[in-house]
Amino acid sequence: MPVKQKSPEQEQLDDLRFRIRHSAAHIMAEAVLDLFPEAKFAVGPPTADGFYYDFSVERPFSPDDLERIEARMRETVLKDAPFNMTELTREDASGHFADQPFKLEIISEIPEDEGLTTYEHDGFVDLCRGPHVGSTGEVAAFKLVTIAGAYWRGDEHNEMLQRIYGTAWESEDALQAHLERLEEAGRRDHRRLGQELGLFFFDPVAPASPFFLPRGAALTNALTAYVRGLYERYGYQEVITPQVFDSSLWKRSGHYDNYRENMYFIHADEQEFAVKPMNCPAAAILYASHLHSYRDLPIRYADFGRLHRFERSGVTHGLTRVRTFSQDDAHIFCAPEQVESEVLSFINMVSETFDVFGFDDVRVVLSLRPEKRIGTDDLWDAAEGALASALDARGMEYEPALNEGAFYGPKIDFFVADAIGREWQLSTVQLDYNLPERFDLEYVDSEGARQRPVVIHRAMLGSIERFLGVVIEHFGGAFPVWLAPVQAEVIPIADRHVEYAESVRARLEAAGVRAHVDARGERMNAKIRDAQLMKTPYMLVVGDKEAEAEGAAVRLRSGEDLGLLPVADVAARIADEAARRG
Amino acid sequence: MPVKQKSPEQEQLDDLRFRIRHSAAHIMAEAVLDLFPEAKFAVGPPTADGFYYDFSVERPFSPDDLERIEARMRETVLKDAPFNMTELTREDASGHFADQPFKLEIISEIPEDEGLTTYEHDGFVDLCRGPHVGSTGEVAAFKLVTIAGAYWRGDEHNEMLQRIYGTAWESEDALQAHLERLEEAGRRDHRRLGQELGLFFFDPVAPASPFFLPRGAALTNALTAYVRGLYERYGYQEVITPQVFDSSLWKRSGHYDNYRENMYFIHADEQEFAVKPMNCPAAAILYASHLHSYRDLPIRYADFGRLHRFERSGVTHGLTRVRTFSQDDAHIFCAPEQVESEVLSFINMVSETFDVFGFDDVRVVLSLRPEKRIGTDDLWDAAEGALASALDARGMEYEPALNEGAFYGPKIDFFVADAIGREWQLSTVQLDYNLPERFDLEYVDSEGARQRPVVIHRAMLGSIERFLGVVIEHFGGAFPVWLAPVQAEVIPIADRHVEYAESVRARLEAAGVRAHVDARGERMNAKIRDAQLMKTPYMLVVGDKEAEAEGAAVRLRSGEDLGLLPVADVAARIADEAARRG
Repeated sequence: MPVKQKSPEQEQLDDLRFRIRHSAAHIMAEAVLDLFPEAKFAVGPPTADGFYYDFSVERPFSPDDLERIEARMRETVLKDAPFNMTELTREDASGHFADQPFKLEIISEIPEDEGLTTYEHDGFVDLCRGPHVGSTGEVAAFKLVTIAGAYWRGDEHNEMLQRIYGTAWESEDALQAHLERLEEAGRRDHRRLGQELGLFFFDPVAPASPFFLPRGAALTNALTAYVRGLYERYGYQEVITPQVFDSSLWKRSGHYDNYRENMYFIHADEQEFAVKPMNCPAAAILYASHLHSYRDLPIRYADFGRLHRFERSGVTHGLTRVRTFSQDDAHIFCAPEQVESEVLSFINMVSETFDVFGFDDVRVVLSLRPEKRIGTDDLWDAAEGALASALDARGMEYEPALNEGAFYGPKIDFFVADAIGREWQLSTVQLDYNLPERFDLEYVDSEGARQRPVVIHRAMLGSIERFLGVVIEHFGGAFPVWLAPVQAEVIPIADRHVEYAESVRARLEAAGVRAHVDARGERMNAKIRDAQLMKTPYMLVVGDKEAEAEGAAVRLRSGEDLGLLPVADVAARIADEAARRG
Repeated sequence: MPVKQKSPEQEQLDDLRFRIRHSAAHIMAEAVLDLFPEAKFAVGPPTADGFYYDFSVERPFSPDDLERIEARMRETVLKDAPFNMTELTREDASGHFADQPFKLEIISEIPEDEGLTTYEHDGFVDLCRGPHVGSTGEVAAFKLVTIAGAYWRGDEHNEMLQRIYGTAWESEDALQAHLERLEEAGRRDHRRLGQELGLFFFDPVAPASPFFLPRGAALTNALTAYVRGLYERYGYQEVITPQVFDSSLWKRSGHYDNYRENMYFIHADEQEFAVKPMNCPAAAILYASHLHSYRDLPIRYADFGRLHRFERSGVTHGLTRVRTFSQDDAHIFCAPEQVESEVLSFINMVSETFDVFGFDDVRVVLSLRPEKRIGTDDLWDAAEGALASALDARGMEYEPALNEGAFYGPKIDFFVADAIGREWQLSTVQLDYNLPERFDLEYVDSEGARQRPVVIHRAMLGSIERFLGVVIEHFGGAFPVWLAPVQAEVIPIADRHVEYAESVRARLEAAGVRAHVDARGERMNAKIRDAQLMKTPYMLVVGDKEAEAEGAAVRLRSGEDLGLLPVADVAARIADEAARRG
């Protein structure tokens, strides 16, 4: 697992792209206002790879409109008009944006003591903090990509606005490369593949809550089995905890005060209960259920418990943002002097796993003490030092993020780039000096004195559902053998071969291979094509000759033809490939 | 799996015991009223192996009181006073029980057109339908067992009464045998063993919802893995479904009208949701998500989804009655002509499993059409016939239960007797002709026409939690190797052997054996004793000699000493024993 850190050149390029995209948003707003003089404009920020702007207009934009807006934008770029910043008073600003209600709302919420600035280009003025490029000509390459509805301020009680998404780059080549990535990403979209590969679906009776079909459940179980194997080797102990807890627990943990908006509440038996959004308090109850000696530590409780978080319907997305999910979540209870070795052990587990999935482009961020925090400076020195030493021990470079730690402890986040270069935040390890206080957790040290353990929250895959969304796109649905929901499709040539096909399936399953028989009344070639479309790694065609030979004609997903092989050999080959996670 | 059916002799004995226990309850009430003249008496029915009576008294009964009551009862038995039945009007009854408020409440609720009867013995009169023994002398052997609090009518809003439990038998021998069973049952109580073996515990923050400690989770996972192995062989497909559904689903399924009292409701996003108490509607949504051909059937969806049912705190009990649990639940969607073979396949799975657990005393009940039902008589003839034929095909005797089927189809229930003779209801297979209508489920038959599938609900273990409670008591915590949470305890003789012990553990785990190292600073004999108390099947003692020989001194839970064996041999032996489920 080589770990990259941003080079100064990359930093510079990222800054330029940010300004190009921000400026492109202004140029788009100018074009829209020119073509649709009644438009009210809301906000238009740069994004990770482009920009958008939200407008209130009388009718939705059409694809034709996009073309006209794009053409109008090109004129402005050609003019190479300079961007000019002006500082002004709230009064002047309110006067300028008198018939732009969204802008007036934003102005009214800027603190009295903060200055206001506008940016002007080509006669168009927008309320904006900047920064921008020097002149419109620097927006070297851009394209408007799509139109979507978006609620003002993301709140579904507000007006639905029209959002135009665009992308902008420093060169035509960079733009083309991005558009190709977009097209590839579309082909790999996990929502699309989820349907095509029969993995999962959604239904309005359970908003943002996936139903996993047999193949999706097999994928989930294969992932869980993989994590359980790691737990065995890394000394974790699995536990099973309830899902519904009295509100007194959430008050004690702090969730009631700080996370209530995202929790589901239940009233029964004259009590208030809430469905758990996190496992931490249950882990604390487990730890506190017995008295622990320093000899028992570290204790590593792993909990795959199902969590529920209320997310607004506007922000949910496929598997990557859902209302219910499981995590490969664990809580480590240890003595302060064990923190470094525990974190190192976790980093080893993460590295091993990223290698298995082929995530070879990793970025690590170490979040350090914020201004509002608990604990002494000595404690923070030791805590941050332990995390940094663990990273150093692996020779792992990292970006320190000042002030970004939680008030209760520092953390490390791991970001990976997938097969088409998109970055995802996956693993996290977070120290916690607060939970042990809240739950009065103790252990008896070697002198017989009571001490507070440290709690380490850690998740490697994070939400299993979200991770599935990521790996579906990463592999484009062509999962490695160990993860494939169906590892071998057995294809009888004619109906009379179904019985033999079933016996082959049984022998494969007995060897631990996930196999399926395509017993439909289709022609063999159609079955092979469908198994290819399902991206099944092994296809075993069986007819008279194969039955006679106790074998199967084996084809790989890659198109390679292995010819007639004995069933025992194929079973061993697939099982071995899965065991090596090749 | 031999299946027993009640003999006529047993029926007769059961009837006698029922009357003896019912009469003993009256005799106890007489004694209480004699010793505590202010007592108000509520109800006093016979139970499966005894009787109880609920009283309202000024102070709780003490153990001394029980002795005095028992002595007073013996006097009545010695008198051999006859039981006399009297029919009377509601008015007369109300007059007689004027200062017994509970009796008055009962009288007021008896329908006008129903006759009232009282039974009198030795001058004591109780409102009662009978039947009783001829005279008090027939209560040959009895004992008062315990005192408990019980709410009037089981409702915690009502007065808490004092309940005295007793047991009564036809002979002193039968009583003694029962008391010995009680003592054994106390030793095997799963709540007690759950604590002693570190399996699970309860906490008031989650009423009636178990927290499984690592050993309890290992037990649960071993059970789940066993069921998954069966699913593979019997052609089931596992699915994963949401837990929280919009109330529209529960209205469609009928749960909203018929089961609402036991459901947890959530209000969010201006919608009403409910946490699922059953998996059936989710299975219907899954089936309906795709169009199915007759060639796809039967489809067997297995769902281990966590369920939540609100149970009054008065009725919850250890693991056997909880508010949250998982089931080895599956829904089979099949054509009507496939019902018999599906049910037979399920019976085969059940038989295989009962053999694995040593449940060799099985009772089978076939519940037949009730008066209120959907569907034609032809449909019921076919449905009941299919269930009966499947039982006949296994040569399995069964008791038909007239009118006991659900309105939507007949079912088969399987009852087993555990190691100390107590009967538990475990497996159920239920036909359902209603759910497919409610969810408009279809398949395309060989002619291209749309048809309704039949749904078969089936669970073998039932609630996994409840089943765990049953098997903990059945095995008295001494689980067979395949199920034992820790299969091998590795015991280093001194601290310097801990490292070697860890290497032995790693080798065992690599062979698939659940192993643990006892690294505490205790003496070897204390560790062996503790492993015995934890009922660990294998104990591997390691010191200098064993490390030298790459081996371990192996002792069995039974006390047998296998001497020094190579680690590889022990690992293979344990893994093999587990695989054979010996």
